[in-house]
Amino acid sequence: MRVLCSSLLILFLVSFSSARGDETEKIRAAEAAMMGAAAERGAEGFMSFYADDAVELPEGEQAIQGKANIAKAMQYLNDKNNRLTWTPNKVDVSGDLAYSYGVYEFRSTGKDGKLSSSSGKYTTIWKKQNDGSWKVVLDMGNVSPK
Amino acid sequence: MRVLCSSLLILFLVSFSSARGDETEKIRAAEAAMMGAAAERGAEGFMSFYADDAVELPEGEQAIQGKANIAKAMQYLNDKNNRLTWTPNKVDVSGDLAYSYGVYEFRSTGKDGKLSSSSGKYTTIWKKQNDGSWKVVLDMGNVSPK
Repeated sequence: MRVLCSSLLILFLVSFSSARGDETEKIRAAEAAMMGAAAERGAEGFMSFYADDAVELPEGEQAIQGKANIAKAMQYLNDKNNRLTWTPNKVDVSGDLAYSYGVYEFRSTGKDGKLSSSSGKYTTIWKKQNDGSWKVVLDMGNVSPK
Repeated sequence: MRVLCSSLLILFLVSFSSARGDETEKIRAAEAAMMGAAAERGAEGFMSFYADDAVELPEGEQAIQGKANIAKAMQYLNDKNNRLTWTPNKVDVSGDLAYSYGVYEFRSTGKDGKLSSSSGKYTTIWKKQNDGSWKVVLDMGNVSPK
């Protein structure tokens, strides 16, 4: 029984460590899926990766509390002339919390057909939900120099 | 022995859950101590809470990689006319990762004695180090409306 106890503990620790790598891949996959969903389905696709109690910290604006309120601010993603893309530089996970940070690019085609773009940095906090899925609980960005 | 196994498991889970609350308090205490250290010792005090491999994501600038490079950008904290304060709105911890977000205020007294201030939002990622201390691995801010 004592051997069983020790074996279980070792198994637990090994699976714990390997799980961390798996979960990191899940976050990277979620970020890619979220970008695809935003391109295909606009604000609804983007917001489907947010937790109900998420907070958005937009540059030059007050914090926006809750998925429903954030969704209103994300309606610009429904305009097919706008395109938001991003690339994570780093992802780290521990238990039910994870974060990623990286660079984003926002491209917009004006009514004159002229393309404008801006780029910046972002940090996203992910939290594992009761159903095992990862959802965004915090998102923040700021602009980089031209 | 089976009872001992179950008891150990329950004890483990209980201490795990209570540890999460304790660690949250540690992050709040670290944020307060960091603010005090910045006020008293300037950039050196502020930077003493950063991990060596931290990244700073400053608004309008490129990402700054590593504590030594971030320290250079924080030299303005050595000017006693400058004062950076902040208040966390939320802290969450899981295992060796934690984050806080909240509001900051930057006050500066000009050469004419005139006080100017700006405020914004921040997100800080904390990571537990091998010695059990929590250090900043990522910090990001952006400005709020006047």
